[in-house]
Amino acid sequence: MHIIDIVAMDKNISLNHGSGGKLTHQLISDVFLKYFHNETLDQLTDAALLHIPESRIAFTTDSFVVDPIFFPGGNIGKLAVCGTVNDLAVSGARPLYLSASFIIEEGLSMETLDTIAKSMAEEAHAAGVKIVTGDTKVVAHGQCDKVFINTAGIGVVSGPHEKIATGMNVKPGDKIIINGDIADHGMAILCERENLKFKTDIQSDCACLNSLIDSVLETEPGAVKFMRDATRGGLATVLCELAGERKVGVELDEESLPISEPVLGVCDLLGFDPLYIANEGKVVLVVDGDRSEKVLNQMRKHPLGKNSNIIGEVVDDHNGMVLLHTDVGGSRIVDMLAGDQLPRIC
Amino acid sequence: MHIIDIVAMDKNISLNHGSGGKLTHQLISDVFLKYFHNETLDQLTDAALLHIPESRIAFTTDSFVVDPIFFPGGNIGKLAVCGTVNDLAVSGARPLYLSASFIIEEGLSMETLDTIAKSMAEEAHAAGVKIVTGDTKVVAHGQCDKVFINTAGIGVVSGPHEKIATGMNVKPGDKIIINGDIADHGMAILCERENLKFKTDIQSDCACLNSLIDSVLETEPGAVKFMRDATRGGLATVLCELAGERKVGVELDEESLPISEPVLGVCDLLGFDPLYIANEGKVVLVVDGDRSEKVLNQMRKHPLGKNSNIIGEVVDDHNGMVLLHTDVGGSRIVDMLAGDQLPRIC
Repeated sequence: MHIIDIVAMDKNISLNHGSGGKLTHQLISDVFLKYFHNETLDQLTDAALLHIPESRIAFTTDSFVVDPIFFPGGNIGKLAVCGTVNDLAVSGARPLYLSASFIIEEGLSMETLDTIAKSMAEEAHAAGVKIVTGDTKVVAHGQCDKVFINTAGIGVVSGPHEKIATGMNVKPGDKIIINGDIADHGMAILCERENLKFKTDIQSDCACLNSLIDSVLETEPGAVKFMRDATRGGLATVLCELAGERKVGVELDEESLPISEPVLGVCDLLGFDPLYIANEGKVVLVVDGDRSEKVLNQMRKHPLGKNSNIIGEVVDDHNGMVLLHTDVGGSRIVDMLAGDQLPRIC
Repeated sequence: MHIIDIVAMDKNISLNHGSGGKLTHQLISDVFLKYFHNETLDQLTDAALLHIPESRIAFTTDSFVVDPIFFPGGNIGKLAVCGTVNDLAVSGARPLYLSASFIIEEGLSMETLDTIAKSMAEEAHAAGVKIVTGDTKVVAHGQCDKVFINTAGIGVVSGPHEKIATGMNVKPGDKIIINGDIADHGMAILCERENLKFKTDIQSDCACLNSLIDSVLETEPGAVKFMRDATRGGLATVLCELAGERKVGVELDEESLPISEPVLGVCDLLGFDPLYIANEGKVVLVVDGDRSEKVLNQMRKHPLGKNSNIIGEVVDDHNGMVLLHTDVGGSRIVDMLAGDQLPRIC
């Protein structure tokens, strides 16, 4: 290989960056270790060795293929950190460690990859998690679309929170709370993808929710029966899954659903139902009915919970179904999404 | 959506299978749960809750983009299980849990996905690991190539094996052992990809090595100083990394390198150096010099270690460098791979 080739390649990812040889090492050290470094990752062992303070752990994974890779409010890297942190947090776990695995299309600019890795590091730092292991593959131009990122995550679960993940204690009378406006992420991606310009820019809500969730679990121990982040498939999918799995009815009050004017406007204009649109910084909580106001107040104190609201309740009726009471006084069944509204939303 | 559409889609993956809605649920239950099911995964929680018997764990991840997805000796699913199991095992960990995350190209046949999932389940079962969490994304035709699979893995590390991952105890006089023929995987992929037909079919060595490694660690405790699986970049890359990281010299004896006749033939014919060709069932061990024969004998008793050999040693000379003593009596420096011999080998 001539020197001129090496210099030229440095600005863009080449297949050689995925060879496992010199250029892979250079890429890992120049981009990934630069941002992610910590005493575990720096060892560059095949597996990270971790000390886990509790014997009960949560383990999750997600691949991110969002298109476009940069969008108002975030990018694929930030999303990859938030998504996995949130999957752990809603399971009642304290997120500790992440893996990061990249599938990169040949020709991606090094600058783009650098920006993505930088926001992953920033987001991980802010959320108090460490990226401790990873992998890099490069495929030829046209064999993937820019970059796909997989993160897996490990968190610890303390005894009192073990039952949150399955929602086994959910019962009629429990209230349903969401921490703010729905459908922001999906609509931000759609507007960016279709190059739609509106007066008010819609920002993705992409955020790590572990600090908000921590504050609720700490101040109101035992009040939370179930949590899930309302990502792909939106709020409707989370509630349909809850109703189906726990064999309860869910009633949702349309009037109390937090949604911003711009998002409502775009949804109306384009014919989307915001209930099915993806969020990336929204957690749905099922909370003991008697303590729901206290939980709500606690949530509203947190920057990511200002617009929190009680949006419905669990009922001992129409088991397995979600019923929406509409603004105009009617009601309709909310079913699970049959088709795909927006591919590659996350 | 008309019924006829749903029926038609059932034979191939559609974007709707990645929506997070009904079809995603159906895909998970019809394919993934069918094969992977266990009490943890069956919960379908956002994160798997696991009980870990030791507080020291190993955590690793790899994305698999191998092309073709089916090859002699395996497929991308088997590879995805073996690769991550091996990364844990060579770190001195006992592999316990895997995640499985799929990025699927729209149009992939359901039958293909089923076959892949089935071999993942079989391989995981044989290796004694459970697939406990996962994710599915579907991208449009042309946005990825058939299917990419990420697996992350968790294993437990018992005290005496903690130092194997970094190789911190490696010292001059230690012997280097490999468990059999090199370069099988890379050459099997290449022959399949280029549709090269030879008299003897070359099979990938793709295999889970944890049982072989276990047998060595149990019968010869403390003898193993370092292990790594010689995947992308081949045996040469593992040894160059070892020499560089531990600041020792490595001498390799060409005559003692196990390699099959067909692989040697194809390498000669096409101008590949087998030292740099990927393996997917080969572990390189650095072993206390005094106990190397015992370790070797133990390894040869295992079906995956029949062709094991001592192939070199660690020396107190030319630190950071790997030297190959050739069959004809000369010697040459083995450097790290600069370019990519074979993209998408794993």
